[in-house]
Amino acid sequence: MQIPLTPIGAVRNGRHDPRDAGWGALESTLELHAEYRGGLAGLESWSHVIVVTWLHLDPDGETPPADWRRHPRGRSDLPRLGVFAQRGRMRPNPIGITTCAIVGVSPDALVVRGLDAVDGTPLLDLKPHARVLDTPDSRLEPGWFTVMMQDYFVDDPPHTP
Amino acid sequence: MQIPLTPIGAVRNGRHDPRDAGWGALESTLELHAEYRGGLAGLESWSHVIVVTWLHLDPDGETPPADWRRHPRGRSDLPRLGVFAQRGRMRPNPIGITTCAIVGVSPDALVVRGLDAVDGTPLLDLKPHARVLDTPDSRLEPGWFTVMMQDYFVDDPPHTP
Repeated sequence: MQIPLTPIGAVRNGRHDPRDAGWGALESTLELHAEYRGGLAGLESWSHVIVVTWLHLDPDGETPPADWRRHPRGRSDLPRLGVFAQRGRMRPNPIGITTCAIVGVSPDALVVRGLDAVDGTPLLDLKPHARVLDTPDSRLEPGWFTVMMQDYFVDDPPHTP
Repeated sequence: MQIPLTPIGAVRNGRHDPRDAGWGALESTLELHAEYRGGLAGLESWSHVIVVTWLHLDPDGETPPADWRRHPRGRSDLPRLGVFAQRGRMRPNPIGITTCAIVGVSPDALVVRGLDAVDGTPLLDLKPHARVLDTPDSRLEPGWFTVMMQDYFVDDPPHTP
């Protein structure tokens, strides 16, 4: 069984390097195909949107491991874990999910800040980020993740593995 | 352009009615196909997971509106808005995104609480819910949404539109 998806638009931000970090300040224009633009009406009442993308670039030519486990970002100083326990783009269906601040809404496009997707990435869906649905009260997170994310939002991460 | 996706497993919870609310306490078993089970390793270190589903049932036989706008849940007391400004399953690509508490992880399945998807729903992806990525600091949300969500997590919503 395969499920067909149709892109609703594409990401425009002038960035073509699929780097692992440094997306926090980047503004992206989400250009919607004409037939889907009516769907944006009302997004201006929300401050954040969940952007669903198809991460269409091959992950550095890497073939998926048979057991679907890998070191996050290929860093051997971090534990080797299942792909469903991490957020990288190496996964059976490379769907990207990023919560972004809404910078502006126009009739044909949405401008967001912090989207970690290169120029040309196909858009699959947009959903408003809602506190009651997307922010659980209590969370447990592993230490390796905290270590890895320390430089995520800055443009020139000091860590070079 | 169409994008092919492959289900990684299916939802099992014994519920077959795609109701609009009342999923908060429901436990679902996410049964993964054998080839993807290794990808679960490490999820036990997280408390919450983002479950990505393909909402495969037709939305009540409703055809998508040409302008992609509708009243949330069909309620005429709520404003008529673009589908990207709301969370219902009527959208160009009916991808479901639900943040769930992890109840248990076994080698072949994941048990979660609060997934709003009927028995048999195909699974597309699982991602750990991470505070730094998925919880923005400040949020603006429209009043209609607060009204609509008041009875979302209880099993017998008092509102019958």
